[in-house]
Amino acid sequence: MKPRKIDTLAVLGVGLLGGSLAAALRARGLVGRVLGAGRRESSLKVAVDRGLIDEPTLDPAAAAGEADLVVLATPVGQFSDLLARIGAALRPDAVVTDVGSTKAQVVADAERLLPHPGRFVGSHPIAGSEKRGPAFAAPDLFEGALCLLTPTERTEADAVQLVRWLWMSLGMRVRQVGPAEHDAILARTSHLPHLAAAALVDVLTDSQATFIGPGFLDTTRIAAGDPGMWTDICRHNGPAIAAALDALIDRLTRMREGLQRGDADAVAELLARAQTRRRALDAERRPDA
Amino acid sequence: MKPRKIDTLAVLGVGLLGGSLAAALRARGLVGRVLGAGRRESSLKVAVDRGLIDEPTLDPAAAAGEADLVVLATPVGQFSDLLARIGAALRPDAVVTDVGSTKAQVVADAERLLPHPGRFVGSHPIAGSEKRGPAFAAPDLFEGALCLLTPTERTEADAVQLVRWLWMSLGMRVRQVGPAEHDAILARTSHLPHLAAAALVDVLTDSQATFIGPGFLDTTRIAAGDPGMWTDICRHNGPAIAAALDALIDRLTRMREGLQRGDADAVAELLARAQTRRRALDAERRPDA
Repeated sequence: MKPRKIDTLAVLGVGLLGGSLAAALRARGLVGRVLGAGRRESSLKVAVDRGLIDEPTLDPAAAAGEADLVVLATPVGQFSDLLARIGAALRPDAVVTDVGSTKAQVVADAERLLPHPGRFVGSHPIAGSEKRGPAFAAPDLFEGALCLLTPTERTEADAVQLVRWLWMSLGMRVRQVGPAEHDAILARTSHLPHLAAAALVDVLTDSQATFIGPGFLDTTRIAAGDPGMWTDICRHNGPAIAAALDALIDRLTRMREGLQRGDADAVAELLARAQTRRRALDAERRPDA
Repeated sequence: MKPRKIDTLAVLGVGLLGGSLAAALRARGLVGRVLGAGRRESSLKVAVDRGLIDEPTLDPAAAAGEADLVVLATPVGQFSDLLARIGAALRPDAVVTDVGSTKAQVVADAERLLPHPGRFVGSHPIAGSEKRGPAFAAPDLFEGALCLLTPTERTEADAVQLVRWLWMSLGMRVRQVGPAEHDAILARTSHLPHLAAAALVDVLTDSQATFIGPGFLDTTRIAAGDPGMWTDICRHNGPAIAAALDALIDRLTRMREGLQRGDADAVAELLARAQTRRRALDAERRPDA
């Protein structure tokens, strides 16, 4: 990997991911100046006070216009507005990327709204938590995690290289997939678990909720995530999530039918298959454990 | 709470829970002699080597016959066999309890199979993990967690007192509920999350499984639990779990229908409600956080 450095970075949205990205690049000496744009003075103040960004602004176009690399780090629901606002201000050679959890519509919007579609590289660092805001930003948030890049046939090779370098420099494993493929995968690995966790919380009565144990808390931790952000994700990836919900409902319905006819063995096979795979996932992800 | 001590404890099943119970009582000097019964010499050897039990045996009746307090700590599927085997050997004043995850059938079996039904007190310490076996036993496993007692109108008051003292001595919060009520609660707080986690793992293709992040791992951690034990639980609590599955399927179906008609707002309300409740659960459980 060629050693390089970003002169001027513009982070649009200084929350958990945007703030952590700025912090991680600064901690490694990989960036000169960091401009941070946000909609709330209070968040920008936290980002400045924590040393995440050098210059705060409420105007994303002003920040983007000075940058070599622009990163969209707001919830995906704000991306199309942002892209429309920054397009005219961008330097022709500037590379634009994002940290959004959905990709097909984001990439389509970017290629439609930006004056140089080949300079946009969709990316999705699979890191973070149910926490939000720059107060939780951390320079090691991305280390060891996976980042998916979703370039298209229009994307220029040097732009892909820069964005690949960006995430690899922060310790991420980088893989490349098509935008639609990305969304089909994430529907099952991320969006479906979120909806299931929320539904598990929702079926409890208030009185039952006083009896939960550590297993319930782990299983539903992600349900504490921001509902606005997750509604955006559902809006962007509706058909793939609906298909994933279908598959989950199918499994649950077969289990219910088994139990209703007094046949617990009907669940045994699925539980055994799930155990084997779940253990394998742990082993793959934590080779030192 | 009156200071007391158990002269002779018999733990039938020296796995994670039975082993931890023995370790916790010994660490606090609350037990004289610990007899441990198991079906595998290898597990018994680990329990002896780790100092969890004093005397290992393959004969549960022999251990139970010498004890003041007998604790059933095998998977619930073995309880009725165990109860049938130990009944004749028990001392008339011995108290019998268990650590099983279901209660209605366990309590009914115990009251039917034991010569002194009033000496049986159902209990369910909501502690543990997806790990199994005495190698993972720890004296602090129960601290701060909840234990449910399910005495019936037949249960003798001094037996309830002893079992209540037992768990409170180990730092547990103790609450009393009816056996059927226990099973209806646990169907939603524990059994349903387990089946949902297993189903979430099962809907992934092998290729998709290489893209998971920390959220998926948390949400599905419990799916690594022993399928035999969980099939037993489904067998014991089938109707309540089927009703819980129904409620979950209902929520997921409404979300799917919303997304299929392009109405992401259909999920927004549920996500917001779930976030509020999930955050409250964290706040309740971790007052220091």
